[in-house]
Amino acid sequence: MAGEFELIARHFTRPPRRPWLGVGDDCALVGIDAGMQLAISSDMLVEGRHFLSTVEPERLGHKALAVNLSDLAACGAEPLACTLALALPRADDAFLAAFARGLYALAGRSGIDLVGGDTTAGPLNICITVFGQVPPGQALLRSGARAGDELWVSGTLGDARLALEVFRGRVALAGGDFETVRRAMELPQPRVALGLALRGVASSAIDLSDGLLGDLGHVLARSGVGARIDADALPRSAVLAAQAPALQHECLLAGGDDYELLFSAAPARREAVLAAAHGAGVAVTRCGAITAAPGLQVVDARGRELPVSWHGFDHFA
Amino acid sequence: MAGEFELIARHFTRPPRRPWLGVGDDCALVGIDAGMQLAISSDMLVEGRHFLSTVEPERLGHKALAVNLSDLAACGAEPLACTLALALPRADDAFLAAFARGLYALAGRSGIDLVGGDTTAGPLNICITVFGQVPPGQALLRSGARAGDELWVSGTLGDARLALEVFRGRVALAGGDFETVRRAMELPQPRVALGLALRGVASSAIDLSDGLLGDLGHVLARSGVGARIDADALPRSAVLAAQAPALQHECLLAGGDDYELLFSAAPARREAVLAAAHGAGVAVTRCGAITAAPGLQVVDARGRELPVSWHGFDHFA
Repeated sequence: MAGEFELIARHFTRPPRRPWLGVGDDCALVGIDAGMQLAISSDMLVEGRHFLSTVEPERLGHKALAVNLSDLAACGAEPLACTLALALPRADDAFLAAFARGLYALAGRSGIDLVGGDTTAGPLNICITVFGQVPPGQALLRSGARAGDELWVSGTLGDARLALEVFRGRVALAGGDFETVRRAMELPQPRVALGLALRGVASSAIDLSDGLLGDLGHVLARSGVGARIDADALPRSAVLAAQAPALQHECLLAGGDDYELLFSAAPARREAVLAAAHGAGVAVTRCGAITAAPGLQVVDARGRELPVSWHGFDHFA
Repeated sequence: MAGEFELIARHFTRPPRRPWLGVGDDCALVGIDAGMQLAISSDMLVEGRHFLSTVEPERLGHKALAVNLSDLAACGAEPLACTLALALPRADDAFLAAFARGLYALAGRSGIDLVGGDTTAGPLNICITVFGQVPPGQALLRSGARAGDELWVSGTLGDARLALEVFRGRVALAGGDFETVRRAMELPQPRVALGLALRGVASSAIDLSDGLLGDLGHVLARSGVGARIDADALPRSAVLAAQAPALQHECLLAGGDDYELLFSAAPARREAVLAAAHGAGVAVTRCGAITAAPGLQVVDARGRELPVSWHGFDHFA
């Protein structure tokens, strides 16, 4: 059986795109542009919690990096590099080859290098840490939302949760529809270009990983404000729009795994928001507003308040 | 039961020592001094592989950070910050309190901040990524060893392996002796000050995590040289020195988990090496030499060659 060092050499050493020291020394050495701040995020993925055992390893490699890049996007940081720490039950060559293919494909499209990491035996666990850079004071933060700001969201929400409900046997979908929502769950597209374009435009941003209401709750707590969400305005796919209204609301508001950006901007910046989204090639939708009064209100198109649970996804709940 | 966000707030948010954005946004933002390179290392610890279930959580928190700081030390990098990703079978408040205590104590002594991370449910897994800075071109690398250089090692070797053999039931030690070697296994001291002092002095360096022979093999491969190790010169504790010679050699040469620095330096730098070690408050011992001829030779004090296995610890072997 192939050993640890051979596996690393076979699957995780490719020439870096920048003249950095790559995999293979005690540390990776990474250059940061003069005067830039380093932005760091780390996410750990566990089988059964963050992905199903049925996922193709290539998609898993994509998703493990995507959820981390999504955090850089939410800060408006330019991605530079990542490390990968991987625990595997056994040295599975086919798994690693496919996993590496998915990871490197997204890394390549994102212009980043895998610069180091660790491989060990153990229950399947994937921990990726990403590094980006951002000019000091320009990072998009959760704390910047102000009363009167409009709330925006990128892409569409809820498909990943709908796919999960299919896997759980609660919902049945035709094959093509299932593949659509399954792709949303397994191949999320981090909104890096949008995050960069929103620097100086958005007043706050967060990426949607634990569900809209839970993640918005973090923004409200950090910003000391409240919000009103127009549930009927939330962008959704045709597949989700065909489901029962209660299921739609559940997937849209408490779905999780969306990896879209939720951000606020002053009404005067509406054109700038749309220009940023156009430049990034991503649709954005206005879906509510920041209020001075604390708390979170969810209303439908006729202004009726919907009963909602405040909680987002809790990994220990 | 306490939820994920509450646990993070309770155990892993302390005011940072530097005016950085700490835990709680999508990314941590870290300042790097002008013109410095970023040094990054990531290590994943799995129960039964990297630590025993019997370890006190406070010691585990120390060790999880120590093994990462040891990588920065081996590069001669100044530690700045770390992230922690943690998978736990359940939200165990007492475990987390003790784990955080051990981690923060070492972080404090090392002058670094915990700036972010992730917490999730899953089989116990600890992934720490550390960040340091080093002036470009000054990092200690595995590739710099030259024929004629002397080989040095810090501290003493083999106690962690001896402790493991006690846990395995292969060796019996008196209580005080067991506690001595158990501390070596559970509370390794990363040689950060020594690594910094060796910049411009050592020609290569690596930290000893997989056993002297295996780790030295990485240096030899990257540097394109060979080496001769004087086994009788290898520094060892009084506890290890009291064991049978064959066991001593096994623990010293293929022990693993030492987290001491193995480094090379030109003979003309001998005084500079000793001054660096003195300044860092760490003992260093000359234990061999780099040879132009490839391969690794282990000899005793009388120059007789010892039969050795080349292999270090392989996590999939």
